[in-house]
Amino acid sequence: MSGLQLDSNGRLRHLITLEGLDRKHIEALLDRATELRDAFADSGGGPQLLSGRTIINLFFEASTRTRTSFELAARRLGATVLNFEISSSSTNKGETLEDTLSTLEAMQADAFVVRHRENGTPARLARHSRRAVILNAGDGNNAHPTQGLLDALTIRDRHADFSRLKVTLCGDIRHSRVARSDLHVLTALGAGEIRLSGPAALMPASDEFPNCHIVENFDDAVAGSDVVIMLRLQRERMAEALVNDEADYFRRYGLTTERLRRAAADALVMHPGPMNRGIEIAADVADGPQSVILDQVSNGIPVRMAAMASLLEA
Amino acid sequence: MSGLQLDSNGRLRHLITLEGLDRKHIEALLDRATELRDAFADSGGGPQLLSGRTIINLFFEASTRTRTSFELAARRLGATVLNFEISSSSTNKGETLEDTLSTLEAMQADAFVVRHRENGTPARLARHSRRAVILNAGDGNNAHPTQGLLDALTIRDRHADFSRLKVTLCGDIRHSRVARSDLHVLTALGAGEIRLSGPAALMPASDEFPNCHIVENFDDAVAGSDVVIMLRLQRERMAEALVNDEADYFRRYGLTTERLRRAAADALVMHPGPMNRGIEIAADVADGPQSVILDQVSNGIPVRMAAMASLLEA
Amino acid sequence: MSGLQLDSNGRLRHLITLEGLDRKHIEALLDRATELRDAFADSGGGPQLLSGRTIINLFFEASTRTRTSFELAARRLGATVLNFEISSSSTNKGETLEDTLSTLEAMQADAFVVRHRENGTPARLARHSRRAVILNAGDGNNAHPTQGLLDALTIRDRHADFSRLKVTLCGDIRHSRVARSDLHVLTALGAGEIRLSGPAALMPASDEFPNCHIVENFDDAVAGSDVVIMLRLQRERMAEALVNDEADYFRRYGLTTERLRRAAADALVMHPGPMNRGIEIAADVADGPQSVILDQVSNGIPVRMAAMASLLEA
Repeated sequence: MSGLQLDSNGRLRHLITLEGLDRKHIEALLDRATELRDAFADSGGGPQLLSGRTIINLFFEASTRTRTSFELAARRLGATVLNFEISSSSTNKGETLEDTLSTLEAMQADAFVVRHRENGTPARLARHSRRAVILNAGDGNNAHPTQGLLDALTIRDRHADFSRLKVTLCGDIRHSRVARSDLHVLTALGAGEIRLSGPAALMPASDEFPNCHIVENFDDAVAGSDVVIMLRLQRERMAEALVNDEADYFRRYGLTTERLRRAAADALVMHPGPMNRGIEIAADVADGPQSVILDQVSNGIPVRMAAMASLLEA
Repeated sequence: MSGLQLDSNGRLRHLITLEGLDRKHIEALLDRATELRDAFADSGGGPQLLSGRTIINLFFEASTRTRTSFELAARRLGATVLNFEISSSSTNKGETLEDTLSTLEAMQADAFVVRHRENGTPARLARHSRRAVILNAGDGNNAHPTQGLLDALTIRDRHADFSRLKVTLCGDIRHSRVARSDLHVLTALGAGEIRLSGPAALMPASDEFPNCHIVENFDDAVAGSDVVIMLRLQRERMAEALVNDEADYFRRYGLTTERLRRAAADALVMHPGPMNRGIEIAADVADGPQSVILDQVSNGIPVRMAAMASLLEA
Repeated sequence: MSGLQLDSNGRLRHLITLEGLDRKHIEALLDRATELRDAFADSGGGPQLLSGRTIINLFFEASTRTRTSFELAARRLGATVLNFEISSSSTNKGETLEDTLSTLEAMQADAFVVRHRENGTPARLARHSRRAVILNAGDGNNAHPTQGLLDALTIRDRHADFSRLKVTLCGDIRHSRVARSDLHVLTALGAGEIRLSGPAALMPASDEFPNCHIVENFDDAVAGSDVVIMLRLQRERMAEALVNDEADYFRRYGLTTERLRRAAADALVMHPGPMNRGIEIAADVADGPQSVILDQVSNGIPVRMAAMASLLEA
């Protein structure tokens, strides 16, 4: 994968996954995001780094927050942004995805932000692209690299040294691209300890993340954690997880004020959204003083600005 | 409601309803709209008052004209505009409307233009908003304040003194947010006489607008009117209104050239659109010399520019 | 039709069809497109010729490439662009198409790009428009003038003298607006010979294009051709064309490397897209050195810039 993402000079050419991406690239992206965030806060506008550039959102799955975040990021850099959703696309007419990409690239599109339910679609498009860069906005359960980066930035804003951190992820790790990208970035940044909690059927294969500890009992997992990342429960996963109902899930894996007391006193509460209040997280925890959930959202913009600016300048 | 719309200095902070909004605020908005309209006519472009600002259209009901009018207004002020429709929104995924708002607000959205079928949604979002301003683009049968303002501006362009005017509204007043906002603005500006006409079942409760006269016979209502505002008949209301069919409605309440002769010689014909030609209005009246229906549409842009500029500067 | 498209000074006022449009107008559009293409290649941005202008895409049929091409063209000229799709339009609410146009025109829209499944809709809107210009983006099987122009430009880039060219169109000519516009522009530019090939049921009426030769056997049609334009086969036309299945169609009318050898050595291969690989064209031909299919796509942008700039300056 690094062969696909990096050019022959080792510079980032596409952003497909954080898996295998080295710490230097990740820190450069986070540093750039911090700079762009400061610049926006100062001036109320972004630097017009991508003026005259065309960025196309190619979303084969609906998304509110991710598409909007990419669109605002691109516009705040001065780019022209177009949104495509599959329903109005020629792929309905039997055209291959590769031909759709080539067609849009022939219109001088400079970058594609791709979300697709199948693992590997962004990589496949990156291999086909002639000139345009590809940013993965989520593929199947494989990767969601900008989410991983924005989560890392949100943690780094409060804890510079990841090696001292105990981080717990709770929920459906197995089917979650967010979890995978979080785990890749936490590993790259040297997180001290990573714990995974949730129903056994929703845990990753035992060899996928050998550096993580699976702690099925969530109370035990939370204990002493510096960061607790809650994942959204897809309702269709409940049967597979041997969960009776939402109340049962909440009782076993919901993050409540009471459970949060087991964590470090200043532990951060995170969630990629959209949240199911009362299922994986109690409303008062979501809105409480330790929650950085809206900071995650805010950080999504400068992280995506940084990714687009870096790729399009490279 | 004024407590919600006005800040502690009595300045307009959100635009939720015209009910209870005082004449000073309304006239300031109309004056501002007139200035912006003149500036656009002179220069072909709007002043970039909202450059760097982000405005989100949050439409839970489809709309051509209102969404477009708000979008063009915002763009002509230099704002970045994003459009959301419910079908592609996270509210489909069980997220609360409040969480959707907070999420978008965390992306530095400055204003939300909200249309929703339920009364009170814009007010509910205004109460939840931390920093962003809310503009109501129509909620249930409650309010459509920018429509009321653009109708007032269209009348004021021809009649400076509302106290001398007899205004007739005809149609489904009971279920119409347009009618409510028109009645609120006409009352605030001191209209001389307001008559309501239409099937009895579609008239408002007798105590809702005590200053209006219900005149069931439309011929009598039109007689001597200076302004005749026709409302769109929703086909699904016909049974409730004891109307046999469209022809029956047109015979009793359709505005024809013949009926219009009973009004003042220069009476204005208005309709918020979209029109049902041949049901509530005859085609030749809609297109005739007394029709200011397209002026209403044109005035929608500067009125919305004025509202957005005023709220975002406040 | 020329009475509708041209103003009293003979200048182009709308772009509805290439039928009957004289060579001078066509060459002026192609020259303008070439200039704008060069300017964009030099500067990475378009000249802001349409800054402050509002262009509305009014698409009653879904389309990826055409809508995007028009949108990018307009944005690269600095225009404000809005996209309408029928599903969110008031025409759902019983409003006439003419009222929708008038409403949007009253919002100071300067141009409408119209696609509709019924022949004549753009002409009908051009007759109704007061001030705004209409660009046909495809109506029924009648016309797709910007496609004709971009195809002509793609050929002209390689062959200045059309009188020396043998051009073959293959496929469903009868139901194709692309074919009609191509035939009109090729005729206007004096193409030396035009051959039409495909199943008999999909050929035009014998008197529609008296200057074209119908050559049912595709091998014979290709022989000696300088340009081969392949059309998309709509699957629903197969029964009508007495074609058994896709393989049968490909065997008789698919453009393969072997067939292409019958053409001139440097013959151009064209297709308006979206392609059915393996039905009307072999994948290796589509991607081969003689294919100018992506050049067609690229040329769509400057051609549409030229059309919009010319109409809006006139």
